Amino acid sequence: MRVAVMTAPGQVHVEDRPEPRIVEPTDAIIRLAATCICGSDLWPYRGVEPVDEPRPMGHEYAGIVEEVGPAVTTVRPDQFVVGSFFASDNTCEICRSGYQSSCVRREAAAPGGAQAERMRVPLADGTLIATPDLPADDLVPSLLAASDVLGTGWFAAVAAAAGPGRTVAVVGDGAVGLLGVLAAQQLGAERIIAMSRHKSRQKLAIEFGATDIVTERGDAGVAAVKDLTDGLGAHSVIEAVGTQESMMQAIHATRPGGRVGYVGVTHNVALPGMELFFSHVHLHGGPAPVRRFLPDLIDRIWTRRIDPGKVFDLELPLDQAPEGYRAMDRRDAIKVLLRP
Amino acid sequence: MRVAVMTAPGQVHVEDRPEPRIVEPTDAIIRLAATCICGSDLWPYRGVEPVDEPRPMGHEYAGIVEEVGPAVTTVRPDQFVVGSFFASDNTCEICRSGYQSSCVRREAAAPGGAQAERMRVPLADGTLIATPDLPADDLVPSLLAASDVLGTGWFAAVAAAAGPGRTVAVVGDGAVGLLGVLAAQQLGAERIIAMSRHKSRQKLAIEFGATDIVTERGDAGVAAVKDLTDGLGAHSVIEAVGTQESMMQAIHATRPGGRVGYVGVTHNVALPGMELFFSHVHLHGGPAPVRRFLPDLIDRIWTRRIDPGKVFDLELPLDQAPEGYRAMDRRDAIKVLLRP
Repeated sequence: MRVAVMTAPGQVHVEDRPEPRIVEPTDAIIRLAATCICGSDLWPYRGVEPVDEPRPMGHEYAGIVEEVGPAVTTVRPDQFVVGSFFASDNTCEICRSGYQSSCVRREAAAPGGAQAERMRVPLADGTLIATPDLPADDLVPSLLAASDVLGTGWFAAVAAAAGPGRTVAVVGDGAVGLLGVLAAQQLGAERIIAMSRHKSRQKLAIEFGATDIVTERGDAGVAAVKDLTDGLGAHSVIEAVGTQESMMQAIHATRPGGRVGYVGVTHNVALPGMELFFSHVHLHGGPAPVRRFLPDLIDRIWTRRIDPGKVFDLELPLDQAPEGYRAMDRRDAIKVLLRP
Repeated sequence: MRVAVMTAPGQVHVEDRPEPRIVEPTDAIIRLAATCICGSDLWPYRGVEPVDEPRPMGHEYAGIVEEVGPAVTTVRPDQFVVGSFFASDNTCEICRSGYQSSCVRREAAAPGGAQAERMRVPLADGTLIATPDLPADDLVPSLLAASDVLGTGWFAAVAAAAGPGRTVAVVGDGAVGLLGVLAAQQLGAERIIAMSRHKSRQKLAIEFGATDIVTERGDAGVAAVKDLTDGLGAHSVIEAVGTQESMMQAIHATRPGGRVGYVGVTHNVALPGMELFFSHVHLHGGPAPVRRFLPDLIDRIWTRRIDPGKVFDLELPLDQAPEGYRAMDRRDAIKVLLRP
């Protein structure tokens, strides 16, 4: 089968690899209806994370179950399923508390890559959710988005306690940040400030529910958020980038007692203790426990209350994955959907 | 009047200074019944914070109102009052959200020092709480403790969401850590792990409600907490030291999805982004909004449900403040009460 493989920073190609097989009795094999390129795939692409050996890429997936191991009970062949990028048993104490992405049995959900024709998903019962029926074609991008980028934006909004009466600021106008806007809107936030300097992304942020746009970054961006919030800062700030500058921008844009939900993978970040101490913010984030939110997210998509699939502004055949990486790296595309 | 002044690291003496006077119409003048030395006073004493000019010391206080400015309406002369170490208006949006120590009009509550015979307290209405009557002598140490060290331990326990069904670990066996134990017990925590290697402090921790003692520090301390919690870590961890080691010990001792409440002033601390990200903890802390908790704390003390004054294991006349600093610096005393 065909799978996208990264061999070095900037080097992705699509090659033939053996078909995945059931390894553990809790595994499932899925034929992918759609997959995509994640902002986090750009870290190794840009050389920020090492690429020590050829790496099959991708961890976002939606598709049809082809086969399940003998211990799998909640999904069966021919069902359409969506899953999280971390496999979880969904039964341990950590999972039951809603942190499935720190499950005591956590492992990668796509050990052989998800930018592929087929994939093996471990711990299928604790990881996958079947849709009510086979989805209409136009729902597939949104269901795929639930696998990571929507679930991650949603977790950030929940971690930041976005909700009624609250002003939410969003640092980062990638797909996660934009879906953080959507999540904040769905959670009932009163005001949503999207921080973006790109017209097409501003437009999508407004479609998703942003009420204000701030184009400045860093200290100027913080000042602009304070100007919009009586000098106090936002109640809730979603951080969806993961750099030192973006983390400090998020912390400084939050009012004392407010909440930062951070989901950008924090590469080369060191948070200064005294600034954090006197900021008085709540800080919570990490790898999104997408599984916690999946049943609700699938329902919102299925009933067409949300259309997160709009973040895919470029669709390519899987074999053109290298072009997809280039488009996202250059920020020509917000997010690239790949059709196996 | 007499006041303790620090002139350089390790150098404290008691000198005569002018009596405090009403400066703003919102001020009150208090005659101190008792004051004390704070763990945070040891930072400049040990040279970790600079002492650029002679500094009147102390910010913890309880005593009798002698005079109030014309705008003060909620306290009056001859009342016994307790206040927070930060003055606050208690009316701004930040105060109303419970973060009085980040009040938009915040200022030091003891601009002329509180290790003194008398002090001026700004924003008296928003800062001070009067007790129901003049207190019995034996209640005075506990009421004094409410001014900072109890309120700070309480905030840490609340920030860490200590409560029924939860296991709480406490990093730091100073007065704040010990009162964090007491707070966790009062808030209904199921299990309270005190981390201490000092017999006298362990004993007090157990009196305050600790169910387990861990004597190890650093990675060994984390391993011991995990051994006590099915390998998962505590639900709630109180950090009451403020060093890099203690912060990382607190973060690592917390289970994914758990909460760290940190109140040790974080000197020279830099939190590594990736460790924080994958820890999945909630992090909240900063200067305790003692004013939020004062009415409740005073009530618990007044009705003799708690006796936080037990943390004072050395009592000295104000003029012997230098000996008090030496005793706390050497850790011979947990906390020193000074009688003006």
